[in-house]
Amino acid sequence: MLAEIITIGDEILIGQVIDTNSAWMAEQLNLAGIQVHQITSISDNREHILTTLEEASERADIILITGGLGPTKDDVTKQTLCEYFEAELVFSQEAFNTINRIFSSRRFPMTELNRLQAMVPEGCTVLNNYNGTAPGMWFEKNGKIFVSMPGVPFEMKAMVIDQVLPRITGQSGLVILHRTILTDGVGESFLAAKIEPWEDNLPSFIKLAYLPQPGIVRLRLSATGTDRSVLEEAIRKAETELMPLAGEYIWGYDDDTFEEVIGHLLRENKHTLSTAESCTGGLIAHMITGIAGSSDYFKGSVIAYSNEIKESMLGVRHETLLNHGAVSELTVIEMAEGTRIRLGTDYAVSVSGIAGPAGGTPEKPVGTTWIAVASPQGTVAKKFLFGDHRGRNIQRAAISALSMLRKELVSEKG
Amino acid sequence: MLAEIITIGDEILIGQVIDTNSAWMAEQLNLAGIQVHQITSISDNREHILTTLEEASERADIILITGGLGPTKDDVTKQTLCEYFEAELVFSQEAFNTINRIFSSRRFPMTELNRLQAMVPEGCTVLNNYNGTAPGMWFEKNGKIFVSMPGVPFEMKAMVIDQVLPRITGQSGLVILHRTILTDGVGESFLAAKIEPWEDNLPSFIKLAYLPQPGIVRLRLSATGTDRSVLEEAIRKAETELMPLAGEYIWGYDDDTFEEVIGHLLRENKHTLSTAESCTGGLIAHMITGIAGSSDYFKGSVIAYSNEIKESMLGVRHETLLNHGAVSELTVIEMAEGTRIRLGTDYAVSVSGIAGPAGGTPEKPVGTTWIAVASPQGTVAKKFLFGDHRGRNIQRAAISALSMLRKELVSEKG
Repeated sequence: MLAEIITIGDEILIGQVIDTNSAWMAEQLNLAGIQVHQITSISDNREHILTTLEEASERADIILITGGLGPTKDDVTKQTLCEYFEAELVFSQEAFNTINRIFSSRRFPMTELNRLQAMVPEGCTVLNNYNGTAPGMWFEKNGKIFVSMPGVPFEMKAMVIDQVLPRITGQSGLVILHRTILTDGVGESFLAAKIEPWEDNLPSFIKLAYLPQPGIVRLRLSATGTDRSVLEEAIRKAETELMPLAGEYIWGYDDDTFEEVIGHLLRENKHTLSTAESCTGGLIAHMITGIAGSSDYFKGSVIAYSNEIKESMLGVRHETLLNHGAVSELTVIEMAEGTRIRLGTDYAVSVSGIAGPAGGTPEKPVGTTWIAVASPQGTVAKKFLFGDHRGRNIQRAAISALSMLRKELVSEKG
Repeated sequence: MLAEIITIGDEILIGQVIDTNSAWMAEQLNLAGIQVHQITSISDNREHILTTLEEASERADIILITGGLGPTKDDVTKQTLCEYFEAELVFSQEAFNTINRIFSSRRFPMTELNRLQAMVPEGCTVLNNYNGTAPGMWFEKNGKIFVSMPGVPFEMKAMVIDQVLPRITGQSGLVILHRTILTDGVGESFLAAKIEPWEDNLPSFIKLAYLPQPGIVRLRLSATGTDRSVLEEAIRKAETELMPLAGEYIWGYDDDTFEEVIGHLLRENKHTLSTAESCTGGLIAHMITGIAGSSDYFKGSVIAYSNEIKESMLGVRHETLLNHGAVSELTVIEMAEGTRIRLGTDYAVSVSGIAGPAGGTPEKPVGTTWIAVASPQGTVAKKFLFGDHRGRNIQRAAISALSMLRKELVSEKG
């Protein structure tokens, strides 16, 4: 079974709104074993909606449509669906009751415009909207399924989970499984060359995709078939066979983030963390504290942007800064060790670098960054050379610091 | 002139990646006076790419394509473009030089796969990618323009701004000018009511759009015509007439950010800044240090996530935390004043709040946040009640802190 998604709304085509609905629906459909063939975003325009519906129904079996169901004049989806399915608008008592309940619970008066929202094309199945005033509509025509839903994300999501997916599954036997393997410390092409024999050996029903991000390469395996356990076993086998070739680069799976993985490792061993940041300016702490419950293991940071604060708040020695400079191995070691002692944590990460655009020298060009991790086992430091874009240098320094910290946490465990 | 956008990538159709490129390109095209007719997302599949190109070129004059240009086997866009334009792959010395420069600057070895990226369809114009290894490609066929670009957002964005848009707008005589006025401390509907007479009085060739963001409302004026100086004068006049109605809310223009405006104000008066952050976990410092040259006025921060660190590093009194709690007026005042003294800066901002999801109480629900600004004139503090979403609470707390700081910097100046 193939599906297509159509999102309707002028606001998408002028770029005022990012279409997040499509990605969400695509993910839900895929998890249900239904492949999404195309996503199409079009304006609130009758002719365009009609041709897009026609074209989508020639390619796919299921067409999910969102948007254009509001009570105002610029929303034309419902009228156009009447035309497409050659149906009259009729009053739906069921839709009316649901709308009425919404208004009573919010103690808002119901307007004539809202009453009109209970009118639906004759012959469609009403999908109740318990979170808003536009009902969803389920149509079947020539063996194809069309579902029209409101564009408000939480209204649409509840409708998909509670009503649309249960109706659709049962009609398809296909299963698609995905597994994403997260690597770091290796470039995409280097990794590709290294795992080529493994890639060539994958069964034909498993597809591999490379998804690079700054500092990270994600490998996504997608297995398609009818027997879930066969697919699961094949993915497990592929994962196992990848380990000897790329195991050293793998740090997580699927939606894992460094912040989460680090949080788990710290929590598991009841260890605490602090950071001492210069060029990253608080980004590492911000990433770590984005995780709910991080206060259990994260104690705090000193952002030492100036040399005086590196000395006064972190105890970096004046001679170190004088003789080696703020961006040096010795400085980040003293920063990490100073923070670890002063903030009283088991682990401490420090970063000092030249984010740019100014401040570079021939020996230390923009992008030069030192990172250290202090732990009960001692302190390690490493030099990185990033690019010449300030924002990306800061991002890559933070990701690299988290990557180094993770390695230390794991090596201690092992 | 009509445009269409095609984004290519399996990761979009399985919902692993939200297609943010389309909204960004749509906005840029609209600002340049080019209407976007349709956005289509398809998989890395030869046949599907060919039919989608054909269909788009029947409807639109300009087709912007992103994705599928990576060096690995799953990326088929370039091969398919060869087929569509009936061209052979040829070596581009220009593309090779740009790729080579990227690798030299990063001191990475160039692989055979990367060398292949310098091969482009014969007859296309190479668009240099200064931020990555996949060159962009500009094609013209039967009076239609096709532009293929990498899917990595910052690579694509630089290419659109520096190369694609200038080439496109050179072909039309129309001038479109935009001016965005930035306000804060006022809701969208309240502001709209207040400036209604001004809005009604705008000349018909100036369009007004409200663009709300958390804590900020942006007003965008778009003037369309053929005479640049007439448009510039009309926008200047509209801006001047807006001041008596909304001047108190206006804090910047166009791409200004709080971080930049604050940087200018501090630099102008040779003042310095530090932050003391609890729930924002370093985000404020991260935002401030995102500005190049911020080390001139920003000295550092203490991220005091635990109470011990609020005491030991910032000098918050034990009794204050005991009697008032970490999220209280007195705590943020002592945090700001302690930071100001210990880090030796003229200004200091502090934040303490309950970001959630846990930690709320009936008196202090999740979202409760105190912010203080300490300055040579004294210390002010204010309470905010945000929502129940951790990530958004952190964002809104940081924006509100910067907004409060800006007001203090301005009032001192005045």
